Amino acid sequence: MDNRAIGRCLLFLGDVTEPGFAKTAFGLRDWARERCVGELRLPQATVSAGLPQLTCEQAAAQGASALVIGVAAPGGGIPDAWVPALAAALDAGLDIVSGMHVRLDALPALREAAARSGRRLVDVRTPPADIPIATGLPRSGRRILTVGTDCALGKKYTALALSRGLAARGADVSFRATGQTGIMIAGSGMPIDAVVSDFVAGAAEILSPAAAPGHVDVIEGQGSLFHPAFAGVSLGLLHGSQPDMFVVCHDPRRDHLLGYPASPLPSIETVIAQTIALGRVTNPAIHCVGVALNTGGMDAAVAEAEIAAYAARLPYPVADPMRGGPAFERLLDACQETS
Amino acid sequence: MDNRAIGRCLLFLGDVTEPGFAKTAFGLRDWARERCVGELRLPQATVSAGLPQLTCEQAAAQGASALVIGVAAPGGGIPDAWVPALAAALDAGLDIVSGMHVRLDALPALREAAARSGRRLVDVRTPPADIPIATGLPRSGRRILTVGTDCALGKKYTALALSRGLAARGADVSFRATGQTGIMIAGSGMPIDAVVSDFVAGAAEILSPAAAPGHVDVIEGQGSLFHPAFAGVSLGLLHGSQPDMFVVCHDPRRDHLLGYPASPLPSIETVIAQTIALGRVTNPAIHCVGVALNTGGMDAAVAEAEIAAYAARLPYPVADPMRGGPAFERLLDACQETS
Repeated sequence: MDNRAIGRCLLFLGDVTEPGFAKTAFGLRDWARERCVGELRLPQATVSAGLPQLTCEQAAAQGASALVIGVAAPGGGIPDAWVPALAAALDAGLDIVSGMHVRLDALPALREAAARSGRRLVDVRTPPADIPIATGLPRSGRRILTVGTDCALGKKYTALALSRGLAARGADVSFRATGQTGIMIAGSGMPIDAVVSDFVAGAAEILSPAAAPGHVDVIEGQGSLFHPAFAGVSLGLLHGSQPDMFVVCHDPRRDHLLGYPASPLPSIETVIAQTIALGRVTNPAIHCVGVALNTGGMDAAVAEAEIAAYAARLPYPVADPMRGGPAFERLLDACQETS
Repeated sequence: MDNRAIGRCLLFLGDVTEPGFAKTAFGLRDWARERCVGELRLPQATVSAGLPQLTCEQAAAQGASALVIGVAAPGGGIPDAWVPALAAALDAGLDIVSGMHVRLDALPALREAAARSGRRLVDVRTPPADIPIATGLPRSGRRILTVGTDCALGKKYTALALSRGLAARGADVSFRATGQTGIMIAGSGMPIDAVVSDFVAGAAEILSPAAAPGHVDVIEGQGSLFHPAFAGVSLGLLHGSQPDMFVVCHDPRRDHLLGYPASPLPSIETVIAQTIALGRVTNPAIHCVGVALNTGGMDAAVAEAEIAAYAARLPYPVADPMRGGPAFERLLDACQETS
């Protein structure tokens, strides 16, 4: 997975007008800011990551070696409107890094430009070959998985914040990425939702291999056990990860699943009970260590009140990992308790 | 999926010495006997489906148009030792039909023989392109899913027996295959375990589309919600199938998962409770209608006592669908009750 390590890069935002589609760009900006030299947008784009606007040539001059596609179009494809800009990036000497389901080399214009320029087309969402069937056997080392009441509410940010928080305390910790943005941030990982379903749990097993007893893997969760489209991915990841601990991620403003207006959000308590019931199949010691509340965009006082209300209701530490503070320290304490 | 419809065929048993690996051949023999003209074995094989031993030329003369690979080698590949016989089958004028994960055209010798003979290489385990993300929305028509306490204990046979039993009663019913053997028997279906995990529930949705209110789809289950390797497949299939009813398949002789000696079998009651809890995400009306007990190989009296013991314990009809009789009729009755 080393070929997924990317150095300095230019973030491509395409013609994006919906901030929710730019989460790869935002993720790299928020967690790998030092590697992002700037951003490139088409004239139609209305969303920005707030980075310097650079041409490919300017980015290359500032040490960028790749243009990273930082937006996902609905459907997961690469719109025709992006292709000239992507081909020009190759001609300007940049690799192209993509996390789309569609492979870059499926587009003839990009294949030709890559051949012409000698630059690489890097698909981080292509799983490795020869993933084994899961064994279900216990592995040494400790594991924390972030799970959620829904998709897209903070499982990746929570896992990254826990990893950095534990590392800052001197713990021996690895962040294990399972989605395209996380893989771009970490430089390695497993695009779990692109793995053939028979091998999902096996893929999670090799993502988080046996380790020293004191080592902790913090594994980025995917989907939700109660999601009508993606629960199978979540369950395979849960079984293969065999976590000792999990943190439930939740957005208090959401009352139905994102994009599924007929599907009510499950309660945090339901997610905890079900994660334990199903997670026990591969780790009888699985337990919840806390709740990560996404309060992004709230006033500080409103966020604090929201966190306090959930903390009063639940017998676990509750924190917004992105706000830090004593609540987050208590969540880190819980992750470090051995039980 | 029409190109998967196969006519008269010769069953290829390779060099198989373990009956458990020959379940595709046994499935075709048991459920599509009229299409099987005979079997072809390599000298090392010790397992037989009990059909006439024919050469490819003899099979072709009896109207066979295809040689069907009826065995799975450990690992799911095609052993080198099989290749000359498979190439000879193409040269004798037969297509080759395979349900392996590996594609037939990945083997140069087969690709060349197919080109030379003009015969087809048919991979039933290749999913269709452009499977959508699941919508989770309710569909018209009724659905029955077979689920299990483990893999390989009768989910396919139960679904086939229920389909035929309901059809014999005049019901408007379709068998929906989700595995390679079922697809070969039905001539259509969805190789669900070969679908990329993000699309498993969506694949189950298109396998069993909206239908007339009185129509019943009987859907072949896969894996088990408590299987450390395959539960994600089972959950995606459950959510996408949105069954109104399910039948739990169980082998009373099994106390741990097949091939997973450290994993105890879940109880039937646990499987029922969990299938309902998770299945409610896409169908709040989901309920258990019965238990299919695999008593294959038992004396009739022993089997009857076993069935009676489970029936006394459980508030559902219990039957071995392969033995038929009044118990099976009660299971069919339960499938026809609208509730």
